Amino acid sequence: MAKSRFEYVKSFEQNDSCLPNCWLVVRIDGKGFHRFSEVHHFVKPNDDRALQLMSRAAQCVMEEFKDIILCYGQSDEYSFVFKKNTQLYCRRASKLMTNVVSLFASSFVFIWPQYFSSQELQYPPAFDARIVCYPSDQNLKDYFSWRQADCHINNLYNTCFWKLVQEKGLTPAQSQEKLKGTLSSDKNEILFTEFNINYNNLPEIYRKGTILIRQKKGNTESQTPSCTTSSYYCQQNKKTRPRISMLHVDIIGNSFWNEHPELLES
Amino acid sequence: MAKSRFEYVKSFEQNDSCLPNCWLVVRIDGKGFHRFSEVHHFVKPNDDRALQLMSRAAQCVMEEFKDIILCYGQSDEYSFVFKKNTQLYCRRASKLMTNVVSLFASSFVFIWPQYFSSQELQYPPAFDARIVCYPSDQNLKDYFSWRQADCHINNLYNTCFWKLVQEKGLTPAQSQEKLKGTLSSDKNEILFTEFNINYNNLPEIYRKGTILIRQKKGNTESQTPSCTTSSYYCQQNKKTRPRISMLHVDIIGNSFWNEHPELLES
Amino acid sequence: MAKSRFEYVKSFEQNDSCLPNCWLVVRIDGKGFHRFSEVHHFVKPNDDRALQLMSRAAQCVMEEFKDIILCYGQSDEYSFVFKKNTQLYCRRASKLMTNVVSLFASSFVFIWPQYFSSQELQYPPAFDARIVCYPSDQNLKDYFSWRQADCHINNLYNTCFWKLVQEKGLTPAQSQEKLKGTLSSDKNEILFTEFNINYNNLPEIYRKGTILIRQKKGNTESQTPSCTTSSYYCQQNKKTRPRISMLHVDIIGNSFWNEHPELLES
Amino acid sequence: MAKSRFEYVKSFEQNDSCLPNCWLVVRIDGKGFHRFSEVHHFVKPNDDRALQLMSRAAQCVMEEFKDIILCYGQSDEYSFVFKKNTQLYCRRASKLMTNVVSLFASSFVFIWPQYFSSQELQYPPAFDARIVCYPSDQNLKDYFSWRQADCHINNLYNTCFWKLVQEKGLTPAQSQEKLKGTLSSDKNEILFTEFNINYNNLPEIYRKGTILIRQKKGNTESQTPSCTTSSYYCQQNKKTRPRISMLHVDIIGNSFWNEHPELLES
Repeated sequence: MAKSRFEYVKSFEQNDSCLPNCWLVVRIDGKGFHRFSEVHHFVKPNDDRALQLMSRAAQCVMEEFKDIILCYGQSDEYSFVFKKNTQLYCRRASKLMTNVVSLFASSFVFIWPQYFSSQELQYPPAFDARIVCYPSDQNLKDYFSWRQADCHINNLYNTCFWKLVQEKGLTPAQSQEKLKGTLSSDKNEILFTEFNINYNNLPEIYRKGTILIRQKKGNTESQTPSCTTSSYYCQQNKKTRPRISMLHVDIIGNSFWNEHPELLES
Repeated sequence: MAKSRFEYVKSFEQNDSCLPNCWLVVRIDGKGFHRFSEVHHFVKPNDDRALQLMSRAAQCVMEEFKDIILCYGQSDEYSFVFKKNTQLYCRRASKLMTNVVSLFASSFVFIWPQYFSSQELQYPPAFDARIVCYPSDQNLKDYFSWRQADCHINNLYNTCFWKLVQEKGLTPAQSQEKLKGTLSSDKNEILFTEFNINYNNLPEIYRKGTILIRQKKGNTESQTPSCTTSSYYCQQNKKTRPRISMLHVDIIGNSFWNEHPELLES
Repeated sequence: MAKSRFEYVKSFEQNDSCLPNCWLVVRIDGKGFHRFSEVHHFVKPNDDRALQLMSRAAQCVMEEFKDIILCYGQSDEYSFVFKKNTQLYCRRASKLMTNVVSLFASSFVFIWPQYFSSQELQYPPAFDARIVCYPSDQNLKDYFSWRQADCHINNLYNTCFWKLVQEKGLTPAQSQEKLKGTLSSDKNEILFTEFNINYNNLPEIYRKGTILIRQKKGNTESQTPSCTTSSYYCQQNKKTRPRISMLHVDIIGNSFWNEHPELLES
Repeated sequence: MAKSRFEYVKSFEQNDSCLPNCWLVVRIDGKGFHRFSEVHHFVKPNDDRALQLMSRAAQCVMEEFKDIILCYGQSDEYSFVFKKNTQLYCRRASKLMTNVVSLFASSFVFIWPQYFSSQELQYPPAFDARIVCYPSDQNLKDYFSWRQADCHINNLYNTCFWKLVQEKGLTPAQSQEKLKGTLSSDKNEILFTEFNINYNNLPEIYRKGTILIRQKKGNTESQTPSCTTSSYYCQQNKKTRPRISMLHVDIIGNSFWNEHPELLES
């Protein structure tokens, strides 16, 4: 059987290496998670189990790919930054994206029972992913500011929306109508006057999202356990397993970056 | 909080639409499956449970993405063909690749217990994926011929290799050494004279791999059950669920394509 | 002087090979030719000298790059088709585009005096270029139909526009206003009733544009002289110089392609 | 005539915008200039007329495209840097490359007679071009260091090579053989002992190449005349025409960049 006669088809594969000397950001995003969250009875506007599960799956990815220096997640999305000069998979876009997103998806299902003990997974979820090159540190910071601002805006809206539905008995359509065209200040006011809620006192995980970074040696910040429960797996990884910190802080201002100068020096 | 100030970073995303009027093939491939197969005690050279699990996961992908007309799998890889003029995700390469590979990976974990009841999954696996454009029908046929020829060559080698290890007591290194430089005919001869095996009588799933195609209406070929066990999920999909046939036949010659003319007419 | 310390910058060049087994079309287009045509007092709506010059420059390109099988030009644009399986410059998009466009531009200036003896070239013109892959023969035919339909539509409009300006004394603005929203049939009617012109009797070069193809051996169709006048150059190329035919015929219907079956067989 | 039926072919054009916030460098390179230089009897190893012509053509390009901040040329190549945030042609790679290279080529022919009065142009030359994105200032500096180091290395070699041929009567093959494997220091030594030439005293244009930058206002450095001789053209451009300086200095060290801080601030 002449193998070589057909091998020419391999030449149709196109090179998709990312530009050198750029930060590489892979962002994954749940496919059809509106329906997924309904089928699995997610608490609205924020389901703690789902948020923790997302971050644990992200942690699995970060443990596997040592060149990821920082992750940021909110809602059903997560972003992963590879260090500027990573040579992983020769910086091939498709290799980087698909390894990250498939490990995230398989981890999500693998560790689901740890977070949703009373709620069986009904069907396997899909995620999409994209990869983006950012030439400068400022571009990278602005990327995370963009995602965190998005988190804030969505959370403020969703908090109002669901309060109106859950506590005032509005239909989703009525709630949507009431919030149409409102400014952030209007929504803060609604929360305060109608529900006695000071938005800024809500848990930071909802308002800021979740940041994963590797601990510097000797650091004793709250460390998360490794992503897998299997005794076999843990045993293999105990000694070399990376220590990862989970934060829910502002990354739009300079403080975060000033406190973690090693991130941009990577 | 000025959202717009940061949104410029979105402009760094690059358009990666695939050329129109080409067959789009997504191929996924297990990451580190040599180790994965050892950890999970896969039977060598072919583990029926693993092969079935791979095909079941591919079926889940095919059920979700209706524009996939044909899949082909062997070992730890699977290829998915989208119809020539699919407009799914505007033919964006990253969207197509990542949705396919993440759903494959999450399905693989989700349905693992159905095939490996006595063997707990030790850790979540990753898969990579690539997408390739093929302009002509002949290119597409040659692609599958390439993969099926690869299946044959690897299977012949692996069958010999493991027979020598398992039945003749050779070490892997000795077995490898013995097979070095042998032709297909030599390996067939070894199997026949030393192990009384006629290679061509081995199960076709090992020698040919697995083909998934959609059944034409009214077709009563062996139909596989839907990929998910959840009563909830099945209920939702019972009526509209696609009927998919699983074949283990030659796709290098013309017979397969002549018997399924609708594939290339899609 | 350490050369190697800097050579890493070469790795930033990105591979841009065109997909195999596709027709490659390079289309060049004059930059700012509205102004260029005014400065050089082009006859409106069609300047025979300019049209001939464009085609002669295209011929120079076709003589240099033997893998070009067909060219089509109209107004200030020209398209060049490379044969489907050309390996020229490893099918690198930037190499193909820039070689074609730069030779076209330098030839345009080089042979200008042959066509504009009484009109000195005032400044060197620029052209842009793009390259497009077409997977099927039908796509390629449709590409040329698109350009020839464009030629017809623009020429019909321009013929009316300039007749109104040149013979009826309308200002350009008035002429434009009069033609706004008119159909092809309206413009044919204006030409016939107001100027006694039957559009279909106008020279085919204006209505159909110009096609360049290589002559089959023994063919005695009107052959154009080689693009260069220099005795030196001609001497070098006399014997091997390709014979090129210039046609002004319909390429939307099937006749042209039926009469030149070798084009698509290339 | 149904235009729209064919217009779908336009959708096969692929977006090729360059990554934002990167320096864009277009490098053009003469096609077959070994032969071109022989046909036109270029003085070896350096022909002043040819070097000046190349720089004058580059100047034409720089005058036309205001976003070019810096050019560097040597031998038959020239590099053009667009400012980091240029929006010209929406940063489309093919538009940028082809406009630059075609204007360079047409200018080369247009102004040829000014530099080669006694030597008629025998045929129109072609140039290829490529575009490369550089994320950081250091990458950009290293790019120019790479080209200038290349200029030095080639010039040292060529100077030795031609001295051996022209003054010692070696054949080209003998000269090549003699220089095979020699270090820079060896070649300096040959020049000094055999030809009494101190390499460092050779004209800087040969050793360093040519840099074109825009003059800061009020600057009275040696200014080159505009690229075109036509009285018509000059008249149009007299007042707005950019003032460009030509330098032959080291750009590998920091001095050049320190003296021209505005370049990287652009």
